[in-house]
Amino acid sequence: MDEELRGNLLVAQSGGPTTVINASLAGVVLEALNHDCIEEIYGGLNGVLGILSENLINLAEESQQVIRGLRQTPGAALGTCRHKLKQAQEFERVLEVFKAHNIRYFFYIGGNDSQDTANKIHHLAQEQNYELRVIGIPKTIDNDLPMTDHCPGYGSVIKYIATTVKEMALDHESIGNHDFVSILEVMGRNTGWIAAGASLAKSRGQPEDAPHLIYMPEVALSEEKFLQDVQSVLQKKPYCMVVVSEGVTDVSGNYLGASKQTDTFGHVTLGGVADYLSNLVQENLGIKARSAKLGINQRSAIHCSSQRDNDEAFICGAEAVKAAINGKSGQMIVLVRSSTDQYQTEVSLTPLSTVANEVKVFPQSWISEDRAGVAHQFFKYASPLIQGEVPIVYENGLPKFVKLKHYSVAKVLGSFVMAE
Amino acid sequence: MDEELRGNLLVAQSGGPTTVINASLAGVVLEALNHDCIEEIYGGLNGVLGILSENLINLAEESQQVIRGLRQTPGAALGTCRHKLKQAQEFERVLEVFKAHNIRYFFYIGGNDSQDTANKIHHLAQEQNYELRVIGIPKTIDNDLPMTDHCPGYGSVIKYIATTVKEMALDHESIGNHDFVSILEVMGRNTGWIAAGASLAKSRGQPEDAPHLIYMPEVALSEEKFLQDVQSVLQKKPYCMVVVSEGVTDVSGNYLGASKQTDTFGHVTLGGVADYLSNLVQENLGIKARSAKLGINQRSAIHCSSQRDNDEAFICGAEAVKAAINGKSGQMIVLVRSSTDQYQTEVSLTPLSTVANEVKVFPQSWISEDRAGVAHQFFKYASPLIQGEVPIVYENGLPKFVKLKHYSVAKVLGSFVMAE
Repeated sequence: MDEELRGNLLVAQSGGPTTVINASLAGVVLEALNHDCIEEIYGGLNGVLGILSENLINLAEESQQVIRGLRQTPGAALGTCRHKLKQAQEFERVLEVFKAHNIRYFFYIGGNDSQDTANKIHHLAQEQNYELRVIGIPKTIDNDLPMTDHCPGYGSVIKYIATTVKEMALDHESIGNHDFVSILEVMGRNTGWIAAGASLAKSRGQPEDAPHLIYMPEVALSEEKFLQDVQSVLQKKPYCMVVVSEGVTDVSGNYLGASKQTDTFGHVTLGGVADYLSNLVQENLGIKARSAKLGINQRSAIHCSSQRDNDEAFICGAEAVKAAINGKSGQMIVLVRSSTDQYQTEVSLTPLSTVANEVKVFPQSWISEDRAGVAHQFFKYASPLIQGEVPIVYENGLPKFVKLKHYSVAKVLGSFVMAE
Repeated sequence: MDEELRGNLLVAQSGGPTTVINASLAGVVLEALNHDCIEEIYGGLNGVLGILSENLINLAEESQQVIRGLRQTPGAALGTCRHKLKQAQEFERVLEVFKAHNIRYFFYIGGNDSQDTANKIHHLAQEQNYELRVIGIPKTIDNDLPMTDHCPGYGSVIKYIATTVKEMALDHESIGNHDFVSILEVMGRNTGWIAAGASLAKSRGQPEDAPHLIYMPEVALSEEKFLQDVQSVLQKKPYCMVVVSEGVTDVSGNYLGASKQTDTFGHVTLGGVADYLSNLVQENLGIKARSAKLGINQRSAIHCSSQRDNDEAFICGAEAVKAAINGKSGQMIVLVRSSTDQYQTEVSLTPLSTVANEVKVFPQSWISEDRAGVAHQFFKYASPLIQGEVPIVYENGLPKFVKLKHYSVAKVLGSFVMAE
């Protein structure tokens, strides 16, 4: 499969945005320009939805400033979606669009659901003997993609959270004459990777630094233990700072504080646990408690994101193109950390089938003995991921972002009606 | 009163910290060093509490790096308090401590309650013929201090919030195939100054930019109108971004979503309105809604704070010292904006009595006609306040902050037992 494959490239973004999802896009585009066998560089709008409806744009027409500025722009510049291709009819349509536009290189920047989609497209093309090279580019703030040491997007979200905790801690410390409990809710769904990242705010060897307690979904939370934990911190410190994952459950497996609402997929809307715990403290301990809920800002806060994360996301995009040029398909880019003391990563590939719908669990051995924090192995793992600051261009006091101009590619097929 | 007054200086911080409360402290210390008549430069720990208990530290012994680093360090470096001196006995004690340590210059960095305290100390010293110069230094994120054009601390909090809104908006925009409502809760207690600041995220002349709806405590919120407002935005945009002040009330004057808990002073614990409105949207409109509650991070986020705000806070500290040296007392520093088109402020003084316990209301004429946003006068007012970025020193991926070493001043009085 090393022969040169001439044709067009299509890249799309899927799932929840991260601060570096556009860095990966920039990596794809800039690397693609180096290869003459790639004729056109197209972007699909809103993930597979844009492919189904033939909403493609020509990325090579965008100015160089815009492509460069993607690395300092949050959100998904191409638009994203949570649509999961299910019916054969939809997969057929994707291939039909690819054929109509002579797409020979397809890059999908996304999480596990999206890699599953990429895998199925890869197999369908093979079945139909349509030569197509499909490479997945990992993306998720949740860091729960398997096979890769860590996931682009993760370093930035935990840098923002650890910064926030470190700043809030100084505030709490300065008002600390009375007992005070501060509870910060972070994302991560059913894994504790993001909540764990808050621990980076602690100085090395300073266990008394905030955050004092971290609750992750990996450990069911008993309200009794929680209140004891808080009291125990307050015996030593005038304030207690708690970080809690939105996906924490009680011992019966029910989300704490989650709304009774479900979304269109039947998923419970997570969130509300910080308020819930805050009320618990006030009602049971009579101690002032205040909650904060970092919402979608944690995955869009590019003004406080990791340069290393941004660099790695960019490299993942560029390496995906190189792998495809070298004949690879049905693979996802992964980051492999060298075992030396100095942090170093190499890029490698893993079959999409090993990633699709799999989850990387937070190691139980990285949870501290008191079940309300993380062990030192986690520090060693996560600390390198937050290094460096992305330089942001400010205009009139606010970050300046770029916007793709959207040079539409002419449609050649009839419209496609999606089944509900 | 222009004769030279020799003696010691005492500075203290009070109320909720801001990202620039330490810049004012640095301004006091660095200016004081220029005046030989100021012999010792003391800091009182935790506001008046430290004065009552004679917990003073020698700020001139701190290293120059630490004093300089205060300008990039959030929280109140001296510690703060919410204690309001009430009994005559407490005021007497303050004077006793001042006399024991030959304090002739007293600077109190705080909001309206604190300026009331400063005013009473000023009058008591006059009554007792104890020569003391008292100058208040304005500080509050809420921007509700009267007599000053704006308040140090305000520019930084709205820069952080507007940045957050601008970043979140790109995230929302990229997932915007389905209707989606995002609700961000911000501080401000009973005034809308902070919520209004979110509007700076809009580009000039782009009313369709986020935030689409802003609800401030100045306008009672009817749930019916709120739901209509949201639907009306969603007719034009795929997502609706709402910013709501924690102190918003319904038409009967009840805080929306506030907890039933009260703090030790009987104040209702505000907060929870974003969750409340989010549930309202989901239940009544069947539209996905997500809330975020910027908690104390909004007043400690120095990593995204305004250089102009920081500069002005520093100048307020320095000018307070100059005013006292020039014989002024019983005054608070205010910022006066020149009426020219170019933003320019001068520092002036106002009697503490004009500030104490007064509140600057948000002008009704600055609220937009639809009662869910602000008028262009507000943009003109607030935009200059967020200019410039405070350079943050990073260490190991996180902001590096300084800590005062706390060189204690020897106590000379017996201990003071505070009445409850």
